[in-house]
Parts: sequence; structure tokens; C-alpha cells
Amino acid sequence: MTKATSMSAAEGAGQVTVLGLGDMGSAIARTFVERGFRTTVWNRTAAKAAPLADAGATAAATAAEAVAASPLVVVCLLDGAAVDEVLASVGTAIAGKVLVNVTSGSPAQARAHERWAVGRGAQYIDGKVMGDPPDVGKPHVVFPFSGSRAAYEAHEPTLQVLGGIAYHGEDAGAAAVEFMAQVGMGFDLLLGFLHTLKLVQREGVDVAAFTDRLAASVAAYPPLLTSMAQAVKSGEYGPDLGSLDVQAALMDDLISHRESVGVEAVRMREVKTLMDRRITAGHGAQGFSSLFELLRK
Amino acid sequence: MTKATSMSAAEGAGQVTVLGLGDMGSAIARTFVERGFRTTVWNRTAAKAAPLADAGATAAATAAEAVAASPLVVVCLLDGAAVDEVLASVGTAIAGKVLVNVTSGSPAQARAHERWAVGRGAQYIDGKVMGDPPDVGKPHVVFPFSGSRAAYEAHEPTLQVLGGIAYHGEDAGAAAVEFMAQVGMGFDLLLGFLHTLKLVQREGVDVAAFTDRLAASVAAYPPLLTSMAQAVKSGEYGPDLGSLDVQAALMDDLISHRESVGVEAVRMREVKTLMDRRITAGHGAQGFSSLFELLRK
Repeated sequence: MTKATSMSAAEGAGQVTVLGLGDMGSAIARTFVERGFRTTVWNRTAAKAAPLADAGATAAATAAEAVAASPLVVVCLLDGAAVDEVLASVGTAIAGKVLVNVTSGSPAQARAHERWAVGRGAQYIDGKVMGDPPDVGKPHVVFPFSGSRAAYEAHEPTLQVLGGIAYHGEDAGAAAVEFMAQVGMGFDLLLGFLHTLKLVQREGVDVAAFTDRLAASVAAYPPLLTSMAQAVKSGEYGPDLGSLDVQAALMDDLISHRESVGVEAVRMREVKTLMDRRITAGHGAQGFSSLFELLRK
Repeated sequence: MTKATSMSAAEGAGQVTVLGLGDMGSAIARTFVERGFRTTVWNRTAAKAAPLADAGATAAATAAEAVAASPLVVVCLLDGAAVDEVLASVGTAIAGKVLVNVTSGSPAQARAHERWAVGRGAQYIDGKVMGDPPDVGKPHVVFPFSGSRAAYEAHEPTLQVLGGIAYHGEDAGAAAVEFMAQVGMGFDLLLGFLHTLKLVQREGVDVAAFTDRLAASVAAYPPLLTSMAQAVKSGEYGPDLGSLDVQAALMDDLISHRESVGVEAVRMREVKTLMDRRITAGHGAQGFSSLFELLRK
């Protein structure tokens, strides 16, 4: 379909509504406008719609009016509570629509929003955005989606303009699982990084020069992660980084060094405890990945 | 210098001793043998010297005899306590030698070993190995060194055969600081990864397929780490991943989701606490890197 036909399509193809014009919602709406979609926008604070209206979007006066304007409604708000509130104001306009909710939230919230939508005659797709607003529309911004397969397949060409999209299955919560896992891992890694910078700073090392070296190390992690995941999946734990017997010998030094410079050692103590338990259980010849076996709550 | 002349050099160039023949010590000794160095080896359990003797090394009967055989003595044992014990058995043979200790250990241990060596008329270089034994001799195995600059410069061509070497300064503890920071960050990242695999497994997601996607994300982290280190160094914190005001909205969902599937949330709670404190202090427009300002013990 060419841009010209999509703009004039009487059946509503090429029409999309965006509810919520924070940084991410605005970036999504702007991407649709720039790709030639007839885009209707709404935001609680109307001023945020002005730059998009200047770019060619139609600013609706109410969320219900915005929903009524398009077959596909993308919701991008601060959190699940904001979604609940806005959807409650939409009334019956949602019937027959495809609701794509890319607001951050948990799998349970996604499933609850799906129940709400289906109960009002709409189809539901949950989505999450893994990337920054300025990069929306580029393939490296990943949008996991899940929920109604029929709705996803029908609107895949529209969603594709947003970035690297992927469908994770009919469970509406699946996109949120992907997001929670990836974002949690990211925060975990980044806070560990900040603690590490504190350690090197306390030791008088230049944090930027250190990070250049660390970045080179981190770039080498993906193949290690892949092999460790294979070990976890198969339950066959080789001595990945070396045997636990050898690795465990480092832990007291790592912990006492961190404590000596006033850097937190919570995770290092956890690693030591897990290694010691694994060795005591007779698995000292296995590697780090075997600690997975002890991760029970 | 050709291999032939190095093998026959009367002045001792091209001669090296390796004390400790665990996996890493054996890999180091084998690398020296293969590059044509006249290599003397010693291990408490003599059997471990046999394969190296077959390859062309000379197996010494005692650590003192091994030390006496070469101007450069590389020590690679399980930990600092093992180093203390072996060095105590060496006696006066260490005088006039260059001792390169690549055993894992803390900066404080490195400085103590330097005092011991200097007190006995030896020069001291501390080193650490960041890589696996099978890869010794390849440039991607990084050996940070620190301590006597004169000794390092004199023996740099020999040390260079081990991998990607780097000199971190006269402080004997500097190589250990680099090692502790990098290895601690690695363990931190990898345990976070195992917890994340537990989360996706509990949600019924294939851990290997998830890791393929995660590995692609991790590959994109180095430039983010570099920009965050610049923010830390300058104290000017832009909204890196987005503002803390927006990021913090995720944390309750991340924590409650982890708890709902029985995955630990210690780090997530720490992130939330730090974000909340930073926002309360009026810095909600800054990014994740600004949490560094709160890392005081």
C-alpha cells in the first residue's frame, strides 16, 4: 500500500490513535505521522498534543473521541493505574477496536487489561518498549508483543513501523515477562556497574579509563551467557569460568576488599554462599552456571 | 632474538620458572615452552610436572631449585596463603630475581608480597589473569600487571607471550584492583543473569531462546557504560535511560513481579530505594547514573 492510498483508505487502514503523549507516547505518535498514518492523539494535558498537531496529527478533545477515530488504539501512559483511569473514561467507544497497550507494567496487569478489553468487545495486544524515545522507529528499539494473534497479524504492518517487533504468544502477559526480565537484568547490571565504579574510584583509578577496559570485557559476555543458558537448560554444568573449587577461592578476597574500601558486597556474599553450598554438596568440579540449581525461594 | 639463540643464551634471557602447575600455571608454563623459553617448573604434587617435562620443560625437585634456575619467576597458585607458604620455602634463592605473582588475591596481599620480595633483594611484579587457561597465549586473555616498572619493562617481551598485557603503575596493588573490579562485576552480572533465567523459567519461557535475545541487548551495553562513566566522572547526570521520575514508576512492578514468581528482588529493592531518595532530593529529572551519588557506606 502506498502512502497516498493509506492516507485516503476509507476502510480505516492506515488510521491509528495514540493515547498518552509523554516522551514515549509522543515519539510513537510522531513516528506514525511521519510514516503517513492518519494519526489521532490525546493527552490529559492538551498542550502536549500541540507539536503533534503541528506535524499533522489530529488532536482529540477526549480519550473516547480519540478511541472512536481509529480501529487501532495505542496506549502509552506512565503506569497501569493511569491506563485503568483513562480506559474507564472511554466508555463503549472501545467495542470493536484493537487496543495495543505499550505502557510499562507487570504480566498480571497485562492479563487484567486484556480481560477488561475482551469484556467490552475489543481485542487486546500488550506490548512493551525496550529502547529510548528518540530511537522509536529504528529497528534496534525492540517491541515485544503478546495477546490476540489475530489482531497482531492484522496490524503487524502498522506496528512494524515502530521498530524491531516480536510476537511472544497468546498469553497477554508474555511481552511483560520479556520486559521485566530484560529491564530487571539491565538495572541489576547497571547498579553493579555503579558499585564497581565506586570501588575503582576509591582505589584512585580513573573511572572512564576503567570503563573503557570493562566495556571490552562486557562485549565478550554474550557467548558466555549463551553457553551458560545451554547448561541451565540441559542441567549439564561444565566448569565454565573454571571449577567452583577454584572460583570460590576468590570470594573471601573479593568480599574483604570491597568492605575495606566501603563498597557494598551483598551480591558477592550471595555468590560465596551459593558456591560453598554447591561445593559442600559435592559439585565443586562444576562451574558458575550450576549455582542456578540453588535458586529456590 | 631467534628461538635458537634464546634457548642457548648464557646470560639467562629466555629463561623462566613457573611455580604452581594447576590449570592456569600449567597453561602459562606450556605457553613459555611452546614459544621457545627454557622453562623450569615446580609443583607441590610432582605428577603435574610430568606432561610439561614431556613437552620440554625442566622439572625441579624443590621450589628453591626452580627459583634458582631462572632470572624471572612466575608464581601461579590457588591463593595468597599458598603463595606465602611456597615463598617461605624458597629461602635466599629469591635474591636478585624478578618475582611475577599472578595468583588471585587482593591489592593488600599484592602489596604484602612486594614487601616480602623487596626485603629479600628481589623485584616484584603483581599480575592477574582475566581469562581461561586454554586461552593463555592469545591476545584476548588480559593480564594486568603492576609493581616495579623497571622489572616490568625489562621482562615485557617475555610477559607478552602470555596474552594482552597492560601495566597499571608502580602500586603493586593496582593489577589486583583491576582484577577485583572486573571479576566482581562479572560475578555480579552472572548471578543477576541466573536469577533472570529463573524468572523466565518460572514464567514458562525457554531459557535458551530468551538468552539469545538478552545477549543481543547485552551487546549494546558498552556504549551506555561509557556514557554513564562520563556522567559519573563529570558529575553531570543527564536522563540516560530516561528520567528517574519515569524509571521509578517501573520499580514496584518489577519487585512485585519477581516476588510473585519466587525470584529474589534484593537488587531491585536497592534500585528503588536509591531512585526514591534521589527523587525526594529533587533530582528526578536526572538519570540512572546519578544513583552513583548515593553510594556511600
